[in-house]
Amino acid sequence: MDRVVECVPNFSEGRKAEVVARLVEAVESVEGALVLGTHVDPDHNRSVVTFVAPPRSVVEAAVRVVARAAELIDLNAHAGQHPRMGACDVLPFVPVRGVSVEECVALARRAGERIWRELSIPVYFYESAALRPERKNLADVRRGGFELLRTEIGTNPARAPDVGESRVHPTAGACIVGVRPLLIAYNVTLNTRDLSVARRIARAVRERDGGLLHLKALGFELESRGVVQVSMNLTSYERTNLHQAFEAVRREAERLGVEVIASEIVGLVPQAALFAAAAHFLKLENYSPDLVLENRIAAALERKKGE
Amino acid sequence: MDRVVECVPNFSEGRKAEVVARLVEAVESVEGALVLGTHVDPDHNRSVVTFVAPPRSVVEAAVRVVARAAELIDLNAHAGQHPRMGACDVLPFVPVRGVSVEECVALARRAGERIWRELSIPVYFYESAALRPERKNLADVRRGGFELLRTEIGTNPARAPDVGESRVHPTAGACIVGVRPLLIAYNVTLNTRDLSVARRIARAVRERDGGLLHLKALGFELESRGVVQVSMNLTSYERTNLHQAFEAVRREAERLGVEVIASEIVGLVPQAALFAAAAHFLKLENYSPDLVLENRIAAALERKKGE
Repeated sequence: MDRVVECVPNFSEGRKAEVVARLVEAVESVEGALVLGTHVDPDHNRSVVTFVAPPRSVVEAAVRVVARAAELIDLNAHAGQHPRMGACDVLPFVPVRGVSVEECVALARRAGERIWRELSIPVYFYESAALRPERKNLADVRRGGFELLRTEIGTNPARAPDVGESRVHPTAGACIVGVRPLLIAYNVTLNTRDLSVARRIARAVRERDGGLLHLKALGFELESRGVVQVSMNLTSYERTNLHQAFEAVRREAERLGVEVIASEIVGLVPQAALFAAAAHFLKLENYSPDLVLENRIAAALERKKGE
Repeated sequence: MDRVVECVPNFSEGRKAEVVARLVEAVESVEGALVLGTHVDPDHNRSVVTFVAPPRSVVEAAVRVVARAAELIDLNAHAGQHPRMGACDVLPFVPVRGVSVEECVALARRAGERIWRELSIPVYFYESAALRPERKNLADVRRGGFELLRTEIGTNPARAPDVGESRVHPTAGACIVGVRPLLIAYNVTLNTRDLSVARRIARAVRERDGGLLHLKALGFELESRGVVQVSMNLTSYERTNLHQAFEAVRREAERLGVEVIASEIVGLVPQAALFAAAAHFLKLENYSPDLVLENRIAAALERKKGE
């Protein structure tokens, strides 16, 4: 696959394994769509399916899985702590390879139109796909969940959907469709129990407080292990990568007299982020993706296909 | 390609570009064989073609390119400093993915049998494919080149080929077929002009003198840049990887009061070697190839194909 879009729909069902299995089936019924993993959270009664597809089939796979969720999930019978307003609650498109943000926005808009037209589920666009600035932030769009939206959608113009009429689907609610960057979730563990240290380091390294661009960070306690963690999201690893985040945390930790014990990737990491980290630490002066055997094989395959 | 053999034939022609182009054609005429690159050396009048293929087609591609070399290259008209005894001089098979050394030895033997039977070129087996201990080392097999072999092959039993009759092919000579490990060529540059420092570090880090296993190292001068280099071959990167080599050189350099300026990969590097280096320096406690997005996509593709 030379052009890849990732799609990470969140569903309001995290207890019935057979429902999740049927959602996966719906995605993979589309030629070219591949499920990379599922995350099922019974506590929040919520699940996430991660799939990739080329641009030409990602909208079809997304619409099919939203349709399947609408068939199988009834929000009126759903309970869970996590805020939600749809059976398929959030539908983010993520540019992964050979696809621009603009293209993903066009795909998200197309998916949104079809979700209303074919399924009668009203649609809100968020983040890079937002049509109103106050809808950039997912949490703002979802405020009050299905129950509040149901009472407000017909009367409060600020809650009118971006696509469709101002009424929720009786069982599937609404769907929030968007485009967000590929992000890497990355935690660094410190040899202290002092949460205030992790919080100070998080503040020192994150963009919001004048640290590294494209880096979000929070301090957390891992009670079971008796240590604390700086938990980070890298929202543009091409600009701020794992090694910059790691080095920034390490420097700050050193200043505070604590040590970095380990780090961990949560979820998936694109290979380019690991290659760049290796090149940095090894001081590789001639690194290019073209040096990697597997990349060279893939390029030769593409070339031969094209002949 | 889930099972990959690399094949790196060396040819006694490094000046006529059209000959090299026709060698590449011969390889790529075989379904599944992919040329990753060519290296043409006019000074040594020698060229190297690097290709990969699944086990089922690598022997066919190898035999075809040896046949093409025998058609196009006449050793009697060949001059160059580098020792050589064949039109296709050396034919190493390298296990890359999902293939054992033993399997590669079987492939090399099959190639050798066909090279004699179909092309009347006598064959010597070297390194892991060697049938006699004194033929493990390529340089020993090739001693004296085509000209000496031609005079000795019929009279000296120590020079009898492993496959075929004891006479050279009149224009294509003989072919040395073997199996060697995938190796990474890796140089580390130091901020000194003192060659003796690079040599001391090389001795300290290499296996031969009690250093790291699977590591060969030499000290070199880069006159044009006014620095010296520790030039290394990693013959088993799964056991001794880039980061261990880099750290060993850095420690030793520090002890001698010099600094590592940079490093470089010569040729190709398998992605696993860079992933492992990144995991080491980032202290990633949960690294597994399964965390890499592209690996997950490849695995999902394989799974779907298998269904």
